[in-house]
Amino acid sequence: MAPTSQRLSGIFTPNIVPLDANGDINEAELRRYVDWLIDKGVHGLYPNGSTGEFLRFTVEERRRIIEIIADQTRGRVPILAGAAEANVKETLKACEAYHELGCRAVAIVSPFYFKLSPSAVYAYFKEIGDNSPIDVTLYNIPMFASPIDVPTVQRLAEECPRIVAIKDSSGDLPHMMRMITAVRPLRPDFSFMTGWDAALMPMLLIGCDGGTNATSGVVPEITRRLFDLTLLGRMDQARDLQFRLLTLFDAMIQNCEFPEGFRAALALRGFKPGSGRQPQSASQKLEVDKLRNQLQCMLSAEGFVDEPVGGCPAGKNDPNPDDVAKIVHGVVEELRRRGLAN
Amino acid sequence: MAPTSQRLSGIFTPNIVPLDANGDINEAELRRYVDWLIDKGVHGLYPNGSTGEFLRFTVEERRRIIEIIADQTRGRVPILAGAAEANVKETLKACEAYHELGCRAVAIVSPFYFKLSPSAVYAYFKEIGDNSPIDVTLYNIPMFASPIDVPTVQRLAEECPRIVAIKDSSGDLPHMMRMITAVRPLRPDFSFMTGWDAALMPMLLIGCDGGTNATSGVVPEITRRLFDLTLLGRMDQARDLQFRLLTLFDAMIQNCEFPEGFRAALALRGFKPGSGRQPQSASQKLEVDKLRNQLQCMLSAEGFVDEPVGGCPAGKNDPNPDDVAKIVHGVVEELRRRGLAN
Amino acid sequence: MAPTSQRLSGIFTPNIVPLDANGDINEAELRRYVDWLIDKGVHGLYPNGSTGEFLRFTVEERRRIIEIIADQTRGRVPILAGAAEANVKETLKACEAYHELGCRAVAIVSPFYFKLSPSAVYAYFKEIGDNSPIDVTLYNIPMFASPIDVPTVQRLAEECPRIVAIKDSSGDLPHMMRMITAVRPLRPDFSFMTGWDAALMPMLLIGCDGGTNATSGVVPEITRRLFDLTLLGRMDQARDLQFRLLTLFDAMIQNCEFPEGFRAALALRGFKPGSGRQPQSASQKLEVDKLRNQLQCMLSAEGFVDEPVGGCPAGKNDPNPDDVAKIVHGVVEELRRRGLAN
Amino acid sequence: MAPTSQRLSGIFTPNIVPLDANGDINEAELRRYVDWLIDKGVHGLYPNGSTGEFLRFTVEERRRIIEIIADQTRGRVPILAGAAEANVKETLKACEAYHELGCRAVAIVSPFYFKLSPSAVYAYFKEIGDNSPIDVTLYNIPMFASPIDVPTVQRLAEECPRIVAIKDSSGDLPHMMRMITAVRPLRPDFSFMTGWDAALMPMLLIGCDGGTNATSGVVPEITRRLFDLTLLGRMDQARDLQFRLLTLFDAMIQNCEFPEGFRAALALRGFKPGSGRQPQSASQKLEVDKLRNQLQCMLSAEGFVDEPVGGCPAGKNDPNPDDVAKIVHGVVEELRRRGLAN
Repeated sequence: MAPTSQRLSGIFTPNIVPLDANGDINEAELRRYVDWLIDKGVHGLYPNGSTGEFLRFTVEERRRIIEIIADQTRGRVPILAGAAEANVKETLKACEAYHELGCRAVAIVSPFYFKLSPSAVYAYFKEIGDNSPIDVTLYNIPMFASPIDVPTVQRLAEECPRIVAIKDSSGDLPHMMRMITAVRPLRPDFSFMTGWDAALMPMLLIGCDGGTNATSGVVPEITRRLFDLTLLGRMDQARDLQFRLLTLFDAMIQNCEFPEGFRAALALRGFKPGSGRQPQSASQKLEVDKLRNQLQCMLSAEGFVDEPVGGCPAGKNDPNPDDVAKIVHGVVEELRRRGLAN
Repeated sequence: MAPTSQRLSGIFTPNIVPLDANGDINEAELRRYVDWLIDKGVHGLYPNGSTGEFLRFTVEERRRIIEIIADQTRGRVPILAGAAEANVKETLKACEAYHELGCRAVAIVSPFYFKLSPSAVYAYFKEIGDNSPIDVTLYNIPMFASPIDVPTVQRLAEECPRIVAIKDSSGDLPHMMRMITAVRPLRPDFSFMTGWDAALMPMLLIGCDGGTNATSGVVPEITRRLFDLTLLGRMDQARDLQFRLLTLFDAMIQNCEFPEGFRAALALRGFKPGSGRQPQSASQKLEVDKLRNQLQCMLSAEGFVDEPVGGCPAGKNDPNPDDVAKIVHGVVEELRRRGLAN
Repeated sequence: MAPTSQRLSGIFTPNIVPLDANGDINEAELRRYVDWLIDKGVHGLYPNGSTGEFLRFTVEERRRIIEIIADQTRGRVPILAGAAEANVKETLKACEAYHELGCRAVAIVSPFYFKLSPSAVYAYFKEIGDNSPIDVTLYNIPMFASPIDVPTVQRLAEECPRIVAIKDSSGDLPHMMRMITAVRPLRPDFSFMTGWDAALMPMLLIGCDGGTNATSGVVPEITRRLFDLTLLGRMDQARDLQFRLLTLFDAMIQNCEFPEGFRAALALRGFKPGSGRQPQSASQKLEVDKLRNQLQCMLSAEGFVDEPVGGCPAGKNDPNPDDVAKIVHGVVEELRRRGLAN
Repeated sequence: MAPTSQRLSGIFTPNIVPLDANGDINEAELRRYVDWLIDKGVHGLYPNGSTGEFLRFTVEERRRIIEIIADQTRGRVPILAGAAEANVKETLKACEAYHELGCRAVAIVSPFYFKLSPSAVYAYFKEIGDNSPIDVTLYNIPMFASPIDVPTVQRLAEECPRIVAIKDSSGDLPHMMRMITAVRPLRPDFSFMTGWDAALMPMLLIGCDGGTNATSGVVPEITRRLFDLTLLGRMDQARDLQFRLLTLFDAMIQNCEFPEGFRAALALRGFKPGSGRQPQSASQKLEVDKLRNQLQCMLSAEGFVDEPVGGCPAGKNDPNPDDVAKIVHGVVEELRRRGLAN
């Protein structure tokens, strides 16, 4: 386990929890999945996140998920455990439990349902930050929960040494830059993680330390490689990969209820995620069927799975991301020729 | 208990749960509060609603709240029990428990955090409606949870006889009319309840059966009387009361985190609500202090409490609602004189 | 022209401007339309409103529209002239021109495109209110333009005697009540008009003086009668009419670009509105065609026009998406069985 | 003028229009400003944009602005002329006029006020794209105008060779990548320009051709250098500059009505922008005064101007609201102790 002074960094996978035919946690499959993710190179695991549908499990099940993952991981990679519960007292109990299980840190989503003011969001995290025995990651996901604004992050970073990171799923680049501007000078150990796969490369380029990215749960090879290429400064390859990841991400996130697209993709990778706990209407099932076929074509194009039996359309709306690097280079060349760049 | 064929109607109070110094349920105070509410004339109780901060209690506490209220009520008024839990299976367990406790119906909020499509909202309620042993009220609160749109309400009303009502907290009059238009012809037994106190009178006038109104937890005399006057067609008195209720409602809902304003008002009515479970910053506490003084002035103007020791400002922004009836009458008279109305 | 001390009241029609084959103002048809509206009993006319697509005409055309209408009306009903121009100086020029033409008042929409703060909205209307030679109606339409909040209305009402009314198209009942509470005690002569037909009856019941309602341009008989019945306190008849008006309003406003539904309905009432200035795609034209048929059925049910040649459907609901899904599913299954799909 | 086959690229300045004491166009100052911008290295000019407050000028003034700028520029840099007028016919007239004046292209904002569907947005631009004599840039600014979605951009790029670029001011990186993915394969000559200075560097890194950035009107040295450094791949220098530009941008855009912050900064750079046409309240004027001082400190830190006479603060953060609350609380307590408050 990394010492507290080292910033959280790299790709943490917000893992789906496989369910059995009864809708209960499929422990064997979850263990197999954990091994596979570590084997594929993700830097850490992030159970009980939004992708893990933490809200659709009971308190006892959320604890059990962390126990299984901690036991299976055996320290190979750090665990960032989602620890939000009904109220501060219950959340702090979870923090203690996950601390004892050897997790690296907890991630705590901002209060949701009720929309809280910045002042109330501050009070909530301040109470947790002052009392948690384990490092705390703030989790900002304004499309689902009360937003954590820049002054609140800054103040919490100043006042609570236990609060060591923020995971931000807004996908808003300038917002991330504003947080970095406000916090880095005060807390060089504070980490910034993006939860929005669609902007992973640019987020890393403006200073993020890593990501908690749902795509890393289904194509960990790509998400991990995108991280590496970006940090190595191989811009053209990174850009190409980011465009391909965006296409996959969009397919999984835009065409059906979250996180059903990721569940469907995981099944294609050889796991048994089972049916989610949110019931599906007939029209939703049809959507997922259609998506599954598209995903199989996309994953086969990446070399991960075979094409579906009926083959894949040739003339589909191929995003043609492989040409992007060439085009960007062309722009630069042209600009230079015209004296617009030097 | 009313037979299923009778529509839910009247004012149901979404009660706050008093807490003791440890932040635990203050059972004695809750029982005293229940008696007071029934004594003041509310038609039913609605525990585990948003005002009751259902989300900030544990599963066990939510059950306990219903047990206490059912025991204390002893059938004097019907109970509409908030029953939303982590997933459909857990929610159905709650439905069974509350059925056994003799509740009149359950209210189930649309899935929140994740924003679901209409198709997914349908699938969720369909599963519950088909398996609940107790009547179900849909709960639409689009500012906090996935919206339940008109076609979804219509389809659920058609397919699920167990679904008998919708509680809508949007405050959107035309939306309520659209639901009534879509559902009344198919299900004359289906009830429409508004959760938006600010529009209670006009909601009743366009066909609502009642309301689940937070104000009825602190000024039950006013909310109940507004209901009665509106149904009696005493328009001028009803309008005057609606304007006064709006002023109170706005004061409690706009000046601090929900439901702290209602908690402060309840304390002024002689109860010990205790501190809420959401921590408060110093600036929030100051806001509540300021609000408490305003509320005491407003409640003293209604004759419920004494003025604060320092007195109340005379020249405050007095809404002067007592003149509204006169003014409206003047308009009608003038219109008639000008031949613009007949 | 009414003296300033008398409140604006009744139903003002925000009229469409008929266009000829060249897309120019069809003056003869506009004059015929004005006569018809007055004949049908609307209390006033409101040219250059949103329904009149003021924004899609040139400065010169907007002036010409008011000239034609003032000339044709010849004082039979008051004119509320939309006078918003590019900036305060140009707007004041329009105020002067419409004053000279004998208009009762101007209506000025809050600045749009740029989203202004309440302070800037105040400064804008203050400048106009202090310099206009003609009474001014504020026009609040927050879905399109910078919102005018309650304190701003209150302050303008206090400081500018020339500002005599607000037209509010938000459809938000409590907001209207808040404005009335804030302004009536200070300015008994200040008028509140609703621009949201869907809530006309409840708006009148809580104290509005009238409405500027697009439906009154196509079914003036209904909108006017709804106004009369509501003021007479004939609640059941008024409610029934409000529900019918809502159904018509929704059909015209929800199924195609605004105000194409109103244009289509006007054609059914025997006028030649011509094609709007906003180009239409093929799919939009199909939508309007479909809507035209629905509207003809609705208007024939009200007795205004004949049924369409093909007749009107008795049962009207489209199949729900899951029935369609099941059918599609069956087809796919069948195809698979025959080896035609994978 | 560049041939159509060459993509629009580089930094285009959306210039403010200096006004004289009467509020009329200050031609001499505008000419001096144009020379200065070209001298400082901007790649092109973009008059009649949002920063240029196109909406607050008359038709005639908008024409005059382009005439002055075309005359003063004399082909030194390309002009992208904002050409949106009241309707398609008027807009096409502007296209013709600006074509004759030798502008490189026009930029046309999506229809605003009315919120149009994608289908209607398509129809509007299709009509323009098919009839304009000059290259057309789509202008997407969803916070102010009807959004132009990805399929619409793709379809217009496919069908209209005259449409050669999109200026997107959403600041949404993934959205920009989606557009590039959809359009580049079909139209290698199509240009993507960002209007959101806060994300200029990451936008360029994922494939944008340049920007139309308001900051380039007040600190053209920085915006231009950021463009150059990014294209040269000098990541650390570029990132540093992007963070500094963000701080300046935020100061100008967040603290007062747009574009008053840019006007204030321009005055500090030695120009006489004059007062804007939107009236200002006393509180707004105070805000601008405060901002002016901050901006002078920021611009002096960049070496562009002297420090203000009173000097600049070393530590800049305001006290947080809870510190203020604690102070106020202490005062109230003290007052109570002395019997001066209750």
